[in-house]
Amino acid sequence: VRVVGVEEIRAAVPPAVVFDAVRAALVAHAAGNTVVPSPMHLPFPHGDTHVKAGYVADQPHFVVKTASSFRGRNTGSMLLLSATTGAPVAMLADDGLLTAWRTAAAGALITDALTPVDVDEVAVMGTGEQARLQMTWLAQLRKIRLVHVWGRRPEAAALLCEQLRASGLDARPGYESGAACVVTTTAAPDPLPLTALRAALHITGIGTDMPGKGELPPSLFAGALVVTDDHEQCLDHGDFGHAVRAGFVDAQADLPVGTVLDGARRSTRSIADLTGIGATDAAVSGAVWGLLG
Amino acid sequence: VRVVGVEEIRAAVPPAVVFDAVRAALVAHAAGNTVVPSPMHLPFPHGDTHVKAGYVADQPHFVVKTASSFRGRNTGSMLLLSATTGAPVAMLADDGLLTAWRTAAAGALITDALTPVDVDEVAVMGTGEQARLQMTWLAQLRKIRLVHVWGRRPEAAALLCEQLRASGLDARPGYESGAACVVTTTAAPDPLPLTALRAALHITGIGTDMPGKGELPPSLFAGALVVTDDHEQCLDHGDFGHAVRAGFVDAQADLPVGTVLDGARRSTRSIADLTGIGATDAAVSGAVWGLLG
Repeated sequence: VRVVGVEEIRAAVPPAVVFDAVRAALVAHAAGNTVVPSPMHLPFPHGDTHVKAGYVADQPHFVVKTASSFRGRNTGSMLLLSATTGAPVAMLADDGLLTAWRTAAAGALITDALTPVDVDEVAVMGTGEQARLQMTWLAQLRKIRLVHVWGRRPEAAALLCEQLRASGLDARPGYESGAACVVTTTAAPDPLPLTALRAALHITGIGTDMPGKGELPPSLFAGALVVTDDHEQCLDHGDFGHAVRAGFVDAQADLPVGTVLDGARRSTRSIADLTGIGATDAAVSGAVWGLLG
Repeated sequence: VRVVGVEEIRAAVPPAVVFDAVRAALVAHAAGNTVVPSPMHLPFPHGDTHVKAGYVADQPHFVVKTASSFRGRNTGSMLLLSATTGAPVAMLADDGLLTAWRTAAAGALITDALTPVDVDEVAVMGTGEQARLQMTWLAQLRKIRLVHVWGRRPEAAALLCEQLRASGLDARPGYESGAACVVTTTAAPDPLPLTALRAALHITGIGTDMPGKGELPPSLFAGALVVTDDHEQCLDHGDFGHAVRAGFVDAQADLPVGTVLDGARRSTRSIADLTGIGATDAAVSGAVWGLLG
């Protein structure tokens, strides 16, 4: 079993490889051509660990991923196993990098697909690493003229604006009237302000990835096209599930993300609820091993 | 992340360490002092992979275990993580050895605890590796005068008898009248013959570790003391669950294995249903790392 470190991965894997792998995994998952068991969750006094597993049909490998967040620090690793023997092949000691990348890629793909082509202002809510990645990866798929950054702590919003400008994106903190496209990346346990989201033609929600979180006001789901990365997961602990239980949307109303990535424009307002699925972990780790193995 | 190979583990870890770790984990699990999420299962065309995780309170590490069985070959590895940082610490590339050992230890401990002291003939049903280990590990806890080996294939039963004799245990194939103590280790999808089990004062069932298996005739559970290694797992896919659904025993009738390991004799017939729990994986891998890390 070879152990591959995070710096080797960072140096060798271009975003295009991640985009291709994530897109293929989302399409395969929508078509039922994946194996994705329910994640495991282990709570600890100082943090949480999640275990996800996934397989994309006809790929040579599958993955068992362990991701921890303890005292605000994320760590993780992906164990790649042979789909023909079941034996472990490699451990990608990626420290959570590939999870961050596949989350960024999935968000950027669906945000790009469902946001009208003429929209070039985007708002991001949250100021962490995913807020930055969602914007820089989206900018690889479409032109972004301006990023509005919303965060509870002004200094964190200002820092993210600096980081985005260093990446070549114009960015400014705060926004009042709302933007046509909003990506939410907070760890909020309660819904974000409705005023900031009401004007959005498309919203991608990234942050509600485990029980106890909820970013999007449930009423937003009424009348919107709803897409989910995994129906069961999003119903169980995504914003979609919160909205279903609040009575704003039917439990069968969602479409799989993988069916709307073709970019065909929809006439209606849309919301993408992403909880993160093992199939994208499998596809990305398999692609990385294809480059490095 | 250090990778420890199977030969290093085999050479360094005495059975007493495994017995102590497994006993402590079973007692902790019975007392509610563990974290054991529901296992994950991935089906493949040529095999199955299970992922189990576990943590025993106040231990420095927890474990995420991946165990595969493809075309009859078992492989596996245990990832040990820090319970204070969540970061991966070591990968025990044990190829399933520690799973085999902890299963043998758990079975031997409960078989010894619930079988009357004067019983020195044991029957084992099944002829695989666990059949052998259940007998040799049990022999470390109590005197075994004779092992009866039941298997569908006579040549496999004869081979196991040879192996047991090589380990210093008298063994003979077949048995007609049944034994007072029976350990079942088959992968049977349907119940074993009732005649072989009806006379048993104690039965330990090892083989029903996933959905689609069922070793013990459900009627055996009527009136027996039932102990389970994990209430939810055994109810979901153990022989206990099959018997509950067949109406022979109440869904709340079981006691945790960890509460009866003290060896206090019970007046009644007993059945132990073991599905294998992540807490024992955590304890054993932690103990191994304590020796080798």
